[in-house]
This record gives sequence, C-alpha cells and structure tokens, in this order.
Amino acid sequence: MVAPSQQMFAIAPAQGKPSLSRAQLRLLVGKARWLHVVADAGLAVAPTIAITRTAWDALQAERRAGTDTLRKVWVTTLFKLVTPGKKPPELVVRTSAPRHIAGLEPARTGLAAPSNELEAVDPQRAMGKAINAAFASYGPAPAGWASEAEREARDNQIVIVQATVSGRIEHFLSRNTTTGRIGPVAPPGEPLPKLPPSAAKLIETIDAASGQHMACVVSIEGDVARLVSARPVQVSAGAQLEAAVERVDARVWMPAEAVRRFNPAQLSQLLHPRLTDDHKATAIATGLGVSPGAASGEIVFTPDDAARCRARGRHCILVVMETGPGDIEGMKAATGFVTARGGMTSHAAVVARITGKPCVAGLRTLQIDAENGVCKIGDKVFTNGQRLTIDGSEGAIYEGALPLSRPHIGGALSRLLDWADDTRTISVRTNAETIEAARTALSFGAEGIGLARSEHMFFSGERMRALRRLILSESEQDRATALEGLVDYQAADYAALFQTMQNKPVNVRLFDPPLHEFLPRSEDDIEDTAEALGLSLKALKARLQRLDEVNPMLGHRGVRLVITYPEILAMQVRALVAGVEAAMDNQDMPVNLEIMVPFVTSAREVAWVKSRIMDIVGNAPVFQRGANLAFGTMIELPRACLRAGDIAKEVDFISFGTNDLTQTTYGISRDDAPAFLATYHRRGLYDVDPFVTIDQRGVGELIRIAIERGRAVNPHLKVGICGEHAGETNSLRFFSGLDIDYVSCSPYRVPVARMVLAQSDDAS
Amino acid sequence: MVAPSQQMFAIAPAQGKPSLSRAQLRLLVGKARWLHVVADAGLAVAPTIAITRTAWDALQAERRAGTDTLRKVWVTTLFKLVTPGKKPPELVVRTSAPRHIAGLEPARTGLAAPSNELEAVDPQRAMGKAINAAFASYGPAPAGWASEAEREARDNQIVIVQATVSGRIEHFLSRNTTTGRIGPVAPPGEPLPKLPPSAAKLIETIDAASGQHMACVVSIEGDVARLVSARPVQVSAGAQLEAAVERVDARVWMPAEAVRRFNPAQLSQLLHPRLTDDHKATAIATGLGVSPGAASGEIVFTPDDAARCRARGRHCILVVMETGPGDIEGMKAATGFVTARGGMTSHAAVVARITGKPCVAGLRTLQIDAENGVCKIGDKVFTNGQRLTIDGSEGAIYEGALPLSRPHIGGALSRLLDWADDTRTISVRTNAETIEAARTALSFGAEGIGLARSEHMFFSGERMRALRRLILSESEQDRATALEGLVDYQAADYAALFQTMQNKPVNVRLFDPPLHEFLPRSEDDIEDTAEALGLSLKALKARLQRLDEVNPMLGHRGVRLVITYPEILAMQVRALVAGVEAAMDNQDMPVNLEIMVPFVTSAREVAWVKSRIMDIVGNAPVFQRGANLAFGTMIELPRACLRAGDIAKEVDFISFGTNDLTQTTYGISRDDAPAFLATYHRRGLYDVDPFVTIDQRGVGELIRIAIERGRAVNPHLKVGICGEHAGETNSLRFFSGLDIDYVSCSPYRVPVARMVLAQSDDAS
Repeated sequence: MVAPSQQMFAIAPAQGKPSLSRAQLRLLVGKARWLHVVADAGLAVAPTIAITRTAWDALQAERRAGTDTLRKVWVTTLFKLVTPGKKPPELVVRTSAPRHIAGLEPARTGLAAPSNELEAVDPQRAMGKAINAAFASYGPAPAGWASEAEREARDNQIVIVQATVSGRIEHFLSRNTTTGRIGPVAPPGEPLPKLPPSAAKLIETIDAASGQHMACVVSIEGDVARLVSARPVQVSAGAQLEAAVERVDARVWMPAEAVRRFNPAQLSQLLHPRLTDDHKATAIATGLGVSPGAASGEIVFTPDDAARCRARGRHCILVVMETGPGDIEGMKAATGFVTARGGMTSHAAVVARITGKPCVAGLRTLQIDAENGVCKIGDKVFTNGQRLTIDGSEGAIYEGALPLSRPHIGGALSRLLDWADDTRTISVRTNAETIEAARTALSFGAEGIGLARSEHMFFSGERMRALRRLILSESEQDRATALEGLVDYQAADYAALFQTMQNKPVNVRLFDPPLHEFLPRSEDDIEDTAEALGLSLKALKARLQRLDEVNPMLGHRGVRLVITYPEILAMQVRALVAGVEAAMDNQDMPVNLEIMVPFVTSAREVAWVKSRIMDIVGNAPVFQRGANLAFGTMIELPRACLRAGDIAKEVDFISFGTNDLTQTTYGISRDDAPAFLATYHRRGLYDVDPFVTIDQRGVGELIRIAIERGRAVNPHLKVGICGEHAGETNSLRFFSGLDIDYVSCSPYRVPVARMVLAQSDDAS
Repeated sequence: MVAPSQQMFAIAPAQGKPSLSRAQLRLLVGKARWLHVVADAGLAVAPTIAITRTAWDALQAERRAGTDTLRKVWVTTLFKLVTPGKKPPELVVRTSAPRHIAGLEPARTGLAAPSNELEAVDPQRAMGKAINAAFASYGPAPAGWASEAEREARDNQIVIVQATVSGRIEHFLSRNTTTGRIGPVAPPGEPLPKLPPSAAKLIETIDAASGQHMACVVSIEGDVARLVSARPVQVSAGAQLEAAVERVDARVWMPAEAVRRFNPAQLSQLLHPRLTDDHKATAIATGLGVSPGAASGEIVFTPDDAARCRARGRHCILVVMETGPGDIEGMKAATGFVTARGGMTSHAAVVARITGKPCVAGLRTLQIDAENGVCKIGDKVFTNGQRLTIDGSEGAIYEGALPLSRPHIGGALSRLLDWADDTRTISVRTNAETIEAARTALSFGAEGIGLARSEHMFFSGERMRALRRLILSESEQDRATALEGLVDYQAADYAALFQTMQNKPVNVRLFDPPLHEFLPRSEDDIEDTAEALGLSLKALKARLQRLDEVNPMLGHRGVRLVITYPEILAMQVRALVAGVEAAMDNQDMPVNLEIMVPFVTSAREVAWVKSRIMDIVGNAPVFQRGANLAFGTMIELPRACLRAGDIAKEVDFISFGTNDLTQTTYGISRDDAPAFLATYHRRGLYDVDPFVTIDQRGVGELIRIAIERGRAVNPHLKVGICGEHAGETNSLRFFSGLDIDYVSCSPYRVPVARMVLAQSDDAS
C-alpha cells in the first residue's frame, strides 16, 4: 500500500523528465500512461500531474480536519505544471481510465489555477469541482460483496490535471487503419494536419510503447509537437497484422512479442469475407453464428435449387430447417446457409466450416413453406430469389445484398504464423476428407490430417446407392457386389488424399454416422431406392422401420457398426490399403496412415477391431515398403475416458472427440440444444455454450483422467484432440495445458490454432 | 500343498468314525461330502474312501518307477473298506464332483477287490481301470493359459471307492419338493419306500449339513438305513423357502443363516405366476425377459383392443412394436406385453415391472401388420385372438395357452424377509406413483417412495389434454387455465399418495419426460388436439415440428423443462403443497415430502430451481405444522457426478438415476441398444447388459466419485439409488459396498432388494 502522499505526482512536469517510483508507474493507466511514456522519452508533453481517488479523498479528509500535511504535497505537485518564472497556466481536468467507459466526464478546460493553498483542495472551486466530477463519473462504489481487487481498482482510479498549452491543436492517427503502415495519418474524414518533423519521433515512441493504433492530440508551436492526449483506436485485424510485422521489421518488437500481442479471434476476419465496417443496416433476426464470414445471395429453399442457381452463375443462400448428408451437393453450390435448427456442431455448421462458408444456425424465428417458395423470418416474409445477407460470425441476417469486404491475405499473415510456429510445441492438424479441404488446410499450415471422416466420402449419389445396397439388400450376392464397388471408390479417394498430404500423417476414422443418415428419407427417395435394390416398397419400408432409431446419437454407430457388420470394416480397410499402395506407386515419400475406431466404450471392442484390421493388413506388402500404419481410437464417451488405461494398452494413439464427449457428459443433444440453451444463457446458468468452448470442469476433467490413465500404461501413447473445440481460442488455451501431442480442427481454423497454441506455450 | 500320501483317505471307514485333517476335509466335494457328514455323525454309511487325481497320478508314477511308499498308504486306505474279520467286499467306483457335469462316468459297480498290493495300483485291473475312467471323465487338462486356481481344482478332483453293501436299495428325497417339509418323501413317480425309524436321523443330519433338498440312496438292512449316495435336487423357490424357515424353527439354522443361504433371484418365482415345471412346450421365439412371470391370453395388437378384451373378462397379450405413455390405459388392461423394440428399460418394460406383469421385449423376429390383425413371429403367423403364452423371466414365447402355476405366498416369505431386515442397514424404498403400486410395495416391505415419476400422473386422457394445452397453446389465458386445472388434479393425486405412505418418505421427481412424449402423434390424435385447443391443424403441426427432437433422450427434458417453462415448476410445487395440506388434514402423522430435480448438469441449475421452489413453499403453513420437506437432485449424467461436490452444497439428498447414467456413460440409447447388444454378447464384448447389471468399472466409478465428493462437502447428505439396477441382484451387491442410505426399485423387486442387501451387509 502506497501512502496517499505518494499518490499525487507529475507525469510530465513543466520542466525536466518525470521521475516516478515503481508503485507510481503502476498507477498509470489510459492517457496518463501515454503522456508519461512520451515525456519519459524526453519529448514535449503538455505539463500533466495525476492524483488517485485515495489521495484526493485523503486531501478532503485533511481539509475537514483542518490539517495541511498532504495539502503541501498536492500544492508542490500542482507547481510542477508551472514553468519557472511564468505565471500559473489555466488548467484542464481529465479522467484517465484503462479502457473507454460510457458516461465518463469530458475534459473540463480553461479552469483557473488555484490562487492559494486552500483553494487547491476546495471542492467548491473550479479545479476541485472538476476533479470531484471526474472521479464521480467513474461510477458508484462497488457493492458490499465486491472483491478486494475491485475495491483496490477503485481506490487507484486517477484524474489528471494538465496545464493548458498554447499553439495550434491538431489530431492525427499513429498508423494507417487499413494498411497498418506507420503515420502520421489523417483522422477519418479530415485532412492530414501539417506536423513538424519532430512529430515522427513522438509517433515512433507512442507506437512502440502502446503496440496499438493511437489517436493523438498535439499542440504545434513552431517545430515542437507537444502531446496533449492519446488513446488507442480499434482497427481491422489486417491493419493490426501489418503493424505488428512492421514493428518486428523495425526491431521495436521481437517476433515472439508480435505473436503474443496478436488477438487470434481476429484471424477469422482475415480469412473470410465480412460486412464492411461502415454498413448501416440493422439485422432483421439473429441466430447462432456457427461459421464465420459474410455472404449475400438469392434465397433458395432446397439444395437442388441451390445447384440450379449456382449453375446460372448466381450466389445463393440456402434457407432450410436443417441439412443432412444427402444435401451435400446442393450445399457445395450455395454461398451460405441459414438453418432453423441446430447449433455449433449441426451438420450444416460442420459442413460450413469445412468449406469456409458462412452459416447462421438455430434461427428460431424462421418458418419455411418450401412448397410455395416462401419463408418467414420473424415478421418479414421472403420469397424464393429475394436477396439476403448473412453474417456467420455474429449470427445476423440482413435484408437485401449488403456490400462485403473481401479478404486480402498478404505475406504478413504467413510471417506472423511462422513466428508463431517457433514457440509452439503442440502440432496442428486438420479435419478434412476432400482434396480441396486438405489443400486449403495445407496452405494454412496444417501438419497433417487429424480426422478424415470416412463417411463423408459417401455423400454423393453413386456411392450412397452402393452403401444403401450394402445395408438394405437381402441378397448375399448383392451385398458382395456393393462392397467391391465401394472398395474401388474409396481406394481412389484415399490415394488422392494421401498424395495430397505426402508423408504427413493422415488419420482416417472408420465409418461413424448414425446408420439411418445413409438411408432414404423422402417418399421419392424411398421409391427410387426400392427400385434400384429390386425390393418391394413394403419390404423396404419394413426394413427402414427396423433401422429407425429413437436416439440415433446414442445408437447403432461407430464401432458398433463394424462389430455388427464386419464386412463394412473389411471393405474400409481393404480400400485404405489399396489407397496407400496407389499413393506409394506415385510418390517417393512414405504414406503415414492412422486408422481410428470411433465411439468405443471398452478395451475389448478396440482389441476386437484391431485384430480384424491386422488380419487384413497383416500381409499387405506396402507396409514392408516403408508406408506406416498406426492404430488408435477416438475417445468420445465418458466410459472410454474412465477406461483409458485398458484402452491405451491396445493402441498407438487416442484422439478426443470433444463434440460427442460433451453431448454425453452433459446429456445434451447438440441438435436439440438450441431449444433451451438460449434460456440457460439468459438465466446465467451456463457461462458458455459447451459446444463452442470446452467445459473445463466436467468434460475437461474426463479428458485429464483419460490422458493420465492412458499415459500411465503406455508412455508412447500419442494424444490428440479432434473435436470442434480444437479450433476455438479459449478451448485451445485449455488444451495447451494438457499433455497432448496435437489438435485437429477445420481448415479455416488452422491459423487460429497455430496462433493460440504458440501464445499459450510461450506463456507457460 | 498336502503330500500325495495325505490325499487318499477313508471318508466312511468300515469301522469307527472318519478322522480327517482340515486339508482333507477341504478336498471333500459332491457326494463324498454328504457321505462323510453322515459318517461323522456316527450313522451308518457304506464304507467309502477317496483319492485325488494328484495322489492317483503319484501312485502311477511310483508304480512305473517300481517303488512302493505311496502304494502302502493306498493299500492301507483300501483296507478301511473291509470289516475286520470279513473278506474284502466287491467295490464301486464313483466320481464326486462339486456340481453336476454332463458326461461324467457313471458308477462302476461289482468290481473285484484287488487281490494283492500290485493289483491295487494296476490300471489294467478292474478297480484301477474304473478309477482311470472316472478321472478321465472330468474332462481334458486345462489349456496352457489356465489360471493357477483352475490347475489346482483339477489336481484336487477326487474319485471315491465304496464297498458294495448288502440289503435292499431304496431311494427317497429329504424334503417335499412342493411344501418344503422334511421327509422322507417319495421320489417323483415312485412310492415312498418303507424306511426304518433310524432314517429320520439320517435325513436330519444330511439336511442340516447341506441346507438343500437331497436325493438319497440307502441300503436297508433290518433297522439300519445305510447311506450309499446323496445329491442335491433342484426345487421350487417356495419349497426352499419353507424348508429354510422350518430349519430355523428346528434351530438347525440361525435366522441369519436362512437369510444368507437363500438365493434372492428365486424370489421372483414366489411373486409371479410362472410356467409349470413339467411343461413340455418349446419356445417359438426368444426375446429379452424384461419383467418376470408368465402369462397367457389372446393376441391383441392395440391398447384399445386390449381394453375391449379385458372388458369381456378375457386375458390378452398386447403385441406391439413398442409402447408409449399414451398406451397406458390399454396396457393396464393387458395381462402381458410383447414388443419388437426396446430393452430392460423401455417404456413397456418399466410399466410391466411396476404393474407386476410379464413382458418380453426386443423380440427382433416380430413383424406386425396391425391393420390386418396379423403378426409374424419368426416363421409363424398369428392372427388377432389366437392364444400365446409368454415367459417374462426367460424372454420366451410359446404358442397356445400353457398351464401356469399361480404364486402362493405364505407366512414363510415375510418371516424370512423380516429376518433379513435384522441384518440390513440400507433402506429399501420403491419407485411408485399410483396408489396400487404404493400399496403393493408397502405389502412387500417398502420403507418409503424413492421415486415418484410425476409425469406418469399425466398419462390419462383429461390430464394429458390439459398438459398439451399448457405446452401448445399460444394464449396466455388458455395456459393459465390449463395450469390451474393441473394443480387440482395433481394435488388430489398427491394427497392420496401421501396418505397411503403415511409418514414414510415420499420422493417426488419433478417432470422428466422428453417433452414430445406428451404430444399427439397419430394423425387422429393431432386433429383432436387441434380442435380441443382451437388451433388450426397447420399451426399445430408447425408447433409440433418445432418441438420434435432428433435425440429426445438428450433433449429438452428434466430440469431444462422447468427452467424454460417456470410455470410448470410452479404448478407442480403448488400441487405438492396442496397435496401435503390435504393429507395432513386427514392424518396425525407428518408427511415427509422430498422434491427431486432431474437431469441436472451443474450446481447452478439446482440452486436456481431450489430458490424458485423455496419462493413458493416458503410461507406454506403446513410445513410449520410438522410436515417435512427435503430438497435434492437426481444424479444421472456424468457431469453431475463430477460436479457432485458443488451440487451437494445445495441439497439435502442426491439419488442416482442409473438408467440415464448408463445411457450417457456408454453413449447407448436403451431403446436402440437391442440392435447391437445381442451381437456384443455373442462376441463376448460385454459381460453383461449394462442396463440390467450395473457397470461397476465405468458407471460405478462415476457413482463412487460423486458420493465421495458429495459427502466431502455435505456430511449430512442422504444418498440413494433409484434406477432399475436397484432391484437387480448383482447390482445391489455392488451398491451395498457404497456409502449409500437407500435404494429404490419397482414394487415387485422390493423383497429382492431387502434380501440381497441383508446378505451383503451380513458378509461385510
């Protein structure tokens, strides 16, 4: 605790440099800090002193008690505003808060200097009145239950008193808000003021000290630019990025400093189109922003319409209740998606993030009458072809086509990310199964594939039909034919994927869809399938009814599917081996394949699948020629976490599927959560959406337990995280504190993961 | 390790009493044990000696080596079969296994006694050959990976050699197989043999030692009944029960011994009708036996037909794909249920156990065409009205009406259960919400209600309509009216339930259905509801579509429902308070109400609901007049287990819902599990169905963690278990080792819980 007498001091004395104790330096926040930095560098600054609330209150108590110890210190401090031999200047009283707060008292200017000691502490006189008003504007004292830190912050609030300076007052910015290049730069809508050459040094000093774009106020008198006030301004991520790289080039920052200072949440601005900063439109509705970026286009209500629209070279927004695997082709054609149902991990959201398209999900006010080509968003009615703009970062929907700013990624981003890699120890992989996604991820620096969802490879007409034949046909011969066809399709897909990734690890997860996602749903589709399979409509419907599940998320999926249909496992493994062979024929580097079993609950399931895989792979010559194979499992159920010790004995790696682990740990279906999660947030029951930010105290504990138990029995165990959380800033910070080897996220989130993990590793 | 020379000895020497070492006594299994017991009591037994495999093998090795140390011991032992002064008798060689094994060598009789020492060990001679054959019939040596215990068991296998006795050979049973009363009793289909009075002592001795119904073979010579052989026989649970009580009355057993010895799995035989032991029918199909007992009746395919059938005074079996809450009335009318879908915790199974009706679920070979009144079970076609018999213990289905034996519960059962209560420390409550179920449970000794599922109280026409109005209506006024009506209905139900239970604790769980279970499903039902609510069909369907859930088990239910619809919480609490008031007006004893919040994931949800409940209950005068209120939560999600420390600060009790905890820990929907669990069992991947027997190493660990964390912060915390596992033998044994206060199971399982917990407490 610093004595009140130490809590009034000159930040920038009229004469000489400031000389503050360490404790006093700690009290400098807001503009006081920037004024001090510049004065300390020996540059011209309007004479300025500061006083804390504690000191001011103590001065007032003393005044009421009629003593004068502190008053003498205060008067001495006030005299630091006076140039020796000159008469006391008029004064300005300003607040100086660490960040902008609405309702702060504006600067009171032109105040008469106190004419005697008593006047210097008199709250009825101009200066004292202004100081009181400034302190009051910081807001009322915290409630009785406030923390010690809150009380201390209030006691330490400061007000500054400045000498009014002569000369021409000018405003400018320290850096360009678009390019980030160092200024001086004209403030928005104003001409660049004429500044003396000495201003350059001022800008350099304040830029180096703040590491931010600053708005400065100076008074110009001849060659001298005297700093009066300064505050940081919000600028685009691009401008911040360029500025950061320039500071490194100018040796103001070390590269690690540039990495540490960059806010990774802003990366998505750099990687996606977005609404221009100056748009004036008001959102007509807000859902969940589940895939960042903005898009505008014509409204379409079906994937087929999206494909048609795209074929005519037009952008479209697909507006639907929800999407499913059968909609993939149409989704690829759309520029963005809006769904009435679902959240961060719904089908639409996942596809959107993989493909880098904006998506607003869980738009509860959306009603659709697709047959008549009409939808209602809140009270507004839209028809097919009308234009909509969506912001998938904010979850906002706008009427009409708003102007968008396109991303422009220069060399600065890759330089920053490369610096990030220098302090990063956890690898970053991507979740991808298409060549496009893999290439995008590689361009963003992905170090491998951490999750290739093999079932996504079936989301096209022909393959889907073959798979349905496998599942639905009752003839042994038919099934065998379907299997052979699937092996060929898959082998070619895998070969291409392996070649794209060269010798980087490629983790392929065995089939993990709820089975019925592959089955026909609409009446038309069912009829077509019956015909294709040579089944009666009745027989097919009976079969479909038997496959229907009450809770597909907890149903016949993952490892359960390959245990009940071992031929599906065999097909997948044979396709993988053939894919590795084909890739190795075309490249010199060895393929590094990892096979991952999903949705296990016990070591026995893992061992069962492993032994069957090894039966098939065992004598594949390609693994004698240098290709590598690792076997592991996804840990995505609470029981798998608890039994990780047993499981780890059977595997080379485990990878946490945090989406499903969150669903089961919380007992919340991600698809159904929007119905109540909004209320939960409103009532303050959950701090965060556990599907967006990992729940450290529940799901996180299970992950910790699993890692600990797994590593205890298998020290060579590789550990990864491949759920959606692996691309989210706060979750990544948590993961960086765990003993893991890699994270794997969607391609567009790879840069975020690289940055956050670098920052966290640096801090630890 | 006992020396081989000690492993050949007389169980019943021709002269005098046997004198065995402790180690030798441990080798006595099967009939050797009973022969020894009787001989040891000084009663007449055919002279008998025993030899182990180890000793016999050692004898053979010695023979091959040409030495005679062991042979001398063996000859001495053989001489114990000879009455001094008489010539050696003819011999009998028998196996003597701890339990019946198929393929054991039958007794070899009339073997010539060895005429010299060498002959006594010669495997080519009659006796040696017979001994070799007897040992061989125990089966081949265990495989290389057999455990130490398996090897030891094999080494210790014994063969007995008896002297052939003169006299009349007779068979009889030690007790009556129906009444359990002490015999002698004629063997099935034979007359009672004439036995001398001395046989009574023999029966008493063998009964006291074995504690089982025994089939005995004796030779009668004058007044002497000489025991030749004895083995236990399987009898009905009723006969065992009566015998156990009679042994206590005869002071053969202490009451605790009677409790310890009784197999609780047999209790269900005493409480439900079952197929007669002598039926010869073959099951036409087998599903899961999910509610014990047997029933026969006419096949009906709809709950309405069941009600009609019942109205005509006829028994019927409801055969359906699955059941839901709307089917309750029809289910009450049926005598038993068969469902194609679902498992141990499906709706049908739960209702069946509550109402004590047999149910076979998950009958995968069942196909139904209800419209045409036809079903197919496997290859057999049945029409409406044909007769079926089902066995809900075994899961078996039989064609036609088989004869059933009705349960007859005398005083013996309640005496045994009362003795059980003396050694039991964990309370047994019941899951019940109807007066009938509560009365049944009380008659079985329930000490309170541990789970009243309040949503079950809405499963009747009028209430269901009111609830639908509440959920679906868009008029504030309509909702308020619906709420008032519901309060009245519920208050009356609660008052009756509280009065039935008097001052025993009644734990009412707040509403916990997947919301859509209350909504109309069939087209007719939807039309009726639209009309009743004054909504357009289109508007109602749109509303229903929005309430539809992908995974209802993980959806908008439990505490989530009352958080999003606080008026439903208020309605329930007001009804509870009114119910307590009404009950207290009619009885002197205080009502002990416990309110339980389901499906929580965090302490905040619990605190939020608690504070709203306390707002309503706070000034209810009835709690000043002596009624008690406790507040708690169901722990049924992994996260709730992990956060039990926080949660325990907010509550008086926690109760584990092991069904949902198993579903989420395993990520298995109980409704969908039958599609793959059968394959899992077949492939040996799961030892038990985790919905039947608690999974100790996964779900069990979570329960342990929760109890430990809960008790650490709240030492007064009451802990219960209210999932279906609380009535299952193996699960109860596990629970008895936890630090819990009570279990709560369906009424018909209360006696099982009382018995198992008594046995476990006694053992610990």
